[in-house]
Amino acid sequence: MVILTLNCGSSSAKYQVYDWDAKEVLAVGIVERVTQGNSFITHKAKGKEEYTLHHNCPNHTEAVELIIKTLTDPVHGVIHDMGMIKAVGHRVVHGGSKFTKSVIVTDEVMKAFHEVSDLAPLHNPANIMGIEAAKKVLPNVPHCAIMDTAWHQTMPESSYLYAVPYDWYEQHAVRRYGFHGTSFLYTSKRAAALLGKDFHNVNLIIAHIGNGSSINAVKNGCSFDTSMGLSPLEGLVMGTRSGDVDPAVPFYMMRKTGASASEIENILNKKSGLLGITGQYTDRRDIQAAVEKGDRRAELAQDVEAYRLKKYIGAYMAALGRVDALVFTAGVGEMAPFIRKKVLEGLEGLGIVYDPEKNAIARTRNAETNIAASNSKIPIFIIPTDEELVMTEDAYALMAGTYDIHTNFTYTFQSPDYVNKARAEGLKNDLVKNPALASILVKAK
Amino acid sequence: MVILTLNCGSSSAKYQVYDWDAKEVLAVGIVERVTQGNSFITHKAKGKEEYTLHHNCPNHTEAVELIIKTLTDPVHGVIHDMGMIKAVGHRVVHGGSKFTKSVIVTDEVMKAFHEVSDLAPLHNPANIMGIEAAKKVLPNVPHCAIMDTAWHQTMPESSYLYAVPYDWYEQHAVRRYGFHGTSFLYTSKRAAALLGKDFHNVNLIIAHIGNGSSINAVKNGCSFDTSMGLSPLEGLVMGTRSGDVDPAVPFYMMRKTGASASEIENILNKKSGLLGITGQYTDRRDIQAAVEKGDRRAELAQDVEAYRLKKYIGAYMAALGRVDALVFTAGVGEMAPFIRKKVLEGLEGLGIVYDPEKNAIARTRNAETNIAASNSKIPIFIIPTDEELVMTEDAYALMAGTYDIHTNFTYTFQSPDYVNKARAEGLKNDLVKNPALASILVKAK
Repeated sequence: MVILTLNCGSSSAKYQVYDWDAKEVLAVGIVERVTQGNSFITHKAKGKEEYTLHHNCPNHTEAVELIIKTLTDPVHGVIHDMGMIKAVGHRVVHGGSKFTKSVIVTDEVMKAFHEVSDLAPLHNPANIMGIEAAKKVLPNVPHCAIMDTAWHQTMPESSYLYAVPYDWYEQHAVRRYGFHGTSFLYTSKRAAALLGKDFHNVNLIIAHIGNGSSINAVKNGCSFDTSMGLSPLEGLVMGTRSGDVDPAVPFYMMRKTGASASEIENILNKKSGLLGITGQYTDRRDIQAAVEKGDRRAELAQDVEAYRLKKYIGAYMAALGRVDALVFTAGVGEMAPFIRKKVLEGLEGLGIVYDPEKNAIARTRNAETNIAASNSKIPIFIIPTDEELVMTEDAYALMAGTYDIHTNFTYTFQSPDYVNKARAEGLKNDLVKNPALASILVKAK
Repeated sequence: MVILTLNCGSSSAKYQVYDWDAKEVLAVGIVERVTQGNSFITHKAKGKEEYTLHHNCPNHTEAVELIIKTLTDPVHGVIHDMGMIKAVGHRVVHGGSKFTKSVIVTDEVMKAFHEVSDLAPLHNPANIMGIEAAKKVLPNVPHCAIMDTAWHQTMPESSYLYAVPYDWYEQHAVRRYGFHGTSFLYTSKRAAALLGKDFHNVNLIIAHIGNGSSINAVKNGCSFDTSMGLSPLEGLVMGTRSGDVDPAVPFYMMRKTGASASEIENILNKKSGLLGITGQYTDRRDIQAAVEKGDRRAELAQDVEAYRLKKYIGAYMAALGRVDALVFTAGVGEMAPFIRKKVLEGLEGLGIVYDPEKNAIARTRNAETNIAASNSKIPIFIIPTDEELVMTEDAYALMAGTYDIHTNFTYTFQSPDYVNKARAEGLKNDLVKNPALASILVKAK
């Protein structure tokens, strides 16, 4: 039996196929340029060469058909027929306040996603198109929605309310929702396993740093506060998003330049963040290369990004009172020691002491490591995230009728014996290239 | 010789007259409803009954004239003739990046204030009117500008840059400026005196909580970061201002309600904050009374206000690395133990332990106290602010030619022997009403 997970953007469709019985990933891939012309699929199947096919997809239905065709292709495929797919897990960015956990998609659920589309106009419409397309192509299996926001529904009012007119909240649902919930769920359960503690008793700070970034304060195993808000624009400095900014700035810039609200909103989402400060880069590797060449604005961008992370870590330490571990995850969190270094320097007073050598060694997406110095009061874990695995398990459990909200549900990856097979292979290669990595690996207790 | 200080808002003019030789305040007062009809002055002279006079002031010049007339009034006045006024200190909210210290107002300075008026449209135009009015009425003395922003010009780029397009900064001066600088200057110098430390070596976190609120991280005696930004809208929850909010919220509300940008901006400035959440209160005493009656939204407002303060304290602890004292100041910071309690609870892990009894006792605007428990690593000072004294000393020193930037200048109130005479009287009364206050008083070393 296999589970398919889908993550549809406005012009893309990412997928993963997971063999539930063998507990391993069979294939991952993406269709790009959907609706834009010159679409193509990039497909990576276990044990096979990466494969690319150009095939025009004027809509998401064609994209899902292309994925199914590729998955069942006699040469490049990984399954005999699409009947082997027993459930589909769809990423949905915004679930509003209605959903505290994943659900099987019904007409009523679809209606709710449409209702909150205004809250995530850049994401939800594409997620909805993806679900509709997949239901057409795979009409006989349960389609499940795994929402970024569901994890954060445990936040208390004092974390999620803005100090704006209360009727904005009551009538227009203006509040903090938070995103990246699937990643925070995975990494917090793994952190509990690494600590050897009951999940319900762990307090954590988790920094998910990628092109989009957010940070999560976890109290007693549940989301307590997070940096993204009504939308994914608030909080940390991101690739192209501003994160926190004086709410007066947009109004001031509209007055100064005559730009419209939607023009300024677009700039804050797509031309700000690291791109805004550097003027040219969003990829942290490019920024680091520029820093090494003496580019002042690249260094400034890195400093602003790291400083804001540092402040959120302090803020959440104050919010939580006790913190059992600090966790870095996602592309940049896992692979960018130069960012982590700037974030962690000077936190000794808060009991967080990193080991510069360990930090430099920790550069893998295949293993869990601890980069804290021996005198640190708080471990500093780097945990490669796995949102697709959460989506897969939720979809499977929803289909099987065994699913429940995360506080009452045990994921396979919570077991001390859990091994991520896809990564075990990668880790072997990493250890060959970087033998010192062995010294910082951390095992679940 | 006396020094007059003036703080003009769009419909008000606050003043203080200080006897430089005796080092004491002779009178304080305010003209209200300037330009609005039914203007009146409320005047409190040392040793005299409070006095109110209705006198219409269609413009700020008339208001300044009314102030001078009252100050020289044979019955209610405190000086024989206006020639005794040797310098005037004016509060100016926004000085942009140009001013790192107070200045004598010249035509060039006025031009600079006009240039940055776009950055503080709610404040600077009124400040400018006040200066122009006072120059007309008192043409033969130096008029000095004391800017809220000057103190914060020591912030590093990583604190003041937003992650927005860099040309917004270069071409439109979009950056964090910070406000309440005069209050932070006073309280940080006093905190250094209470600590018995060289001002240049102290690290502090100072929460100025009033109708407008902001918090300041002070590193080595200089502003390092602060919660207000381009404008006074960012940061903490205030009486009517939202403080931090997802930058997507204004755009979303414009789409949802059809409101214009300026309508939303006005709501964020004037109908948000504590007023927004409670729907009716801005005064913390009203909110506390409502909380005691079981008003859920009043409690929510208090929780959101305190929680945001708590997070900023944590953030600045991370930013500073080492903190020598936490300081509360301004009306609410000095007088609202119920807010401080919610802010301070649960900060033990960060070395901040408050004593609930001491906190309850500390309710005075006339004395400096320490409410930390004996096992707190960090003292928690409550320091009544005195912005007018800073303005007075700056104006005097500018006139006398002895003035310099705060790092090179010694204020009278930095001396261990400094006594605020106006408060000494008030403290006597406070001690009669509240004898326990004696146990938490703290003296400069």
